[in-house]
Amino acid sequence: MDAQPDAPVDTKAAYLKDLLGAGLLIDTGVPGVYGRSGVFEDVITRFEATVTAAGEGQAEVMRFPPGMNRAHFARSGYMKSFPQLAGAVHSFCGDSHAHNDLLQAIEGGQDWTGGLTGTDVVLTPATCYPLYPAVAARGVLPSDGGLYDLQSYCFRHEPSNDPARMQLFRQREYVRIGSPDQVLEFRQLWLQRGQALINRVGLPYQLEIASDPFFGRGGKLMAMAQREQQLKFELLVPITSVEQPTACLSFNYHQDHFGQTWGIATDDGSVAHTACVGFGLERIALALFKHHGLDVKAWPASVREALWG
Amino acid sequence: MDAQPDAPVDTKAAYLKDLLGAGLLIDTGVPGVYGRSGVFEDVITRFEATVTAAGEGQAEVMRFPPGMNRAHFARSGYMKSFPQLAGAVHSFCGDSHAHNDLLQAIEGGQDWTGGLTGTDVVLTPATCYPLYPAVAARGVLPSDGGLYDLQSYCFRHEPSNDPARMQLFRQREYVRIGSPDQVLEFRQLWLQRGQALINRVGLPYQLEIASDPFFGRGGKLMAMAQREQQLKFELLVPITSVEQPTACLSFNYHQDHFGQTWGIATDDGSVAHTACVGFGLERIALALFKHHGLDVKAWPASVREALWG
Repeated sequence: MDAQPDAPVDTKAAYLKDLLGAGLLIDTGVPGVYGRSGVFEDVITRFEATVTAAGEGQAEVMRFPPGMNRAHFARSGYMKSFPQLAGAVHSFCGDSHAHNDLLQAIEGGQDWTGGLTGTDVVLTPATCYPLYPAVAARGVLPSDGGLYDLQSYCFRHEPSNDPARMQLFRQREYVRIGSPDQVLEFRQLWLQRGQALINRVGLPYQLEIASDPFFGRGGKLMAMAQREQQLKFELLVPITSVEQPTACLSFNYHQDHFGQTWGIATDDGSVAHTACVGFGLERIALALFKHHGLDVKAWPASVREALWG
Repeated sequence: MDAQPDAPVDTKAAYLKDLLGAGLLIDTGVPGVYGRSGVFEDVITRFEATVTAAGEGQAEVMRFPPGMNRAHFARSGYMKSFPQLAGAVHSFCGDSHAHNDLLQAIEGGQDWTGGLTGTDVVLTPATCYPLYPAVAARGVLPSDGGLYDLQSYCFRHEPSNDPARMQLFRQREYVRIGSPDQVLEFRQLWLQRGQALINRVGLPYQLEIASDPFFGRGGKLMAMAQREQQLKFELLVPITSVEQPTACLSFNYHQDHFGQTWGIATDDGSVAHTACVGFGLERIALALFKHHGLDVKAWPASVREALWG
């Protein structure tokens, strides 16, 4: 993509205002944390049904909650690559005396979170993170590897007035675990299926080689390497900016990163490779409302047919 | 309920083991944090459909994410009553130097959460907490008050080997906001509807006056007052113990607590009262698997008919 001037910030703020005004999103006072209306949810439910249909019932369905094991999270390397995005869950573990102090801090309008203690739970940063240790715990993979269908809320600490950059949002994912050939074939298949799904709901898009937002100086090198090896593709749809379209789907080849980390073995004793396709469900809904209008009843017949059949 | 000896702890552990063994729940290494199989999720989806049908489409559907505004949470009084259950989200806000320290702590197997900072987000403790400030922001209620249909993941910090006491679980709720008469009529209606729903899926139950787990010494007085005023009823189903059945539904009258806190006014200028009915979705699924067996295909025809039609 050519270098372009930043889109004016207020195209994002303006779209957010439209969504709040139409009642599709509900303000909570925290940027990136919104309630959803029944209509918004229905669009996501219906889009997910098309993703389910495309999966042809071949994947094992698993649903993890929005929080995961803190030790697993640390072992996954997330804090190495994306520390700025993580969310750890802290709780009050004190006695009555500490409780009084805490209530006084709240009453005085002070920060009351300093006395809390880290728990064993962190928020899930991407839907597939809890999967790998669960698959590893089952032992050696069957000869055809594994294929999993996941969905969960994820958290990323990046407050923004861009409605397409929420702190709490859902990803739907299919994950393939097996030999390099198996997982690359899976990624190729979903590159086609993903484009077909987005075509059917009438959204413009472009497909690009991409990289993750790795932290710090060393992160730039990691991002370059990721691009050079074409480990990540993104399907981008213009939502609040044509020049800076938003990644709505991503197609990721992790090589043996998770297989090594969790000791996942294929049936011939090799370290398993993994790949996933992720659908950013809120982003897809936001793109649909942007391109087809805030009133779903007025959406093009072909789009309504694709979603509500 | 008569005083009874505690149920042996291992009836809970034994049922958890059964659920994990059958693949209905998936271990994550943290007590109370589990993945769910597709079958487990389908039972919840189908039960929710019966709740939706019972609501007759009269409620406004809203879906909040599993986290909410920290300031709203503090203002709600949750930290006063239930500080031990709360979960606040903390994030890393440091520079490269602090990042190196953090990675060293992880590598050395030390607690790495001490250097994190409280964010504006806390985990939702009960599905209706984000609703009240959102309703307040709309201004005076219409003359017939408000009726809302909610569902979200909730967090409570109470690690346990009882599968019916999860740290991350979902509540489905209907909430009524209006005059005392309106909200008490709502609660009475749902006391009937809730029992009818549980009857239809073939679960034994008892209805009891109940109280919340208020913190500390003062908490006992609050719990007594709550019982005396019959503010909370619970529908209890035996899951891991007959003597100590599990609350699967609760029917709560908050009087004007949330109306006062958020300044919610009825159309005649009075402070609004609120009531809610909450369905503990995982608990209901666990009760169904306990009473009808771990194989849904072998469930009684009447139960299958009620859920899958």
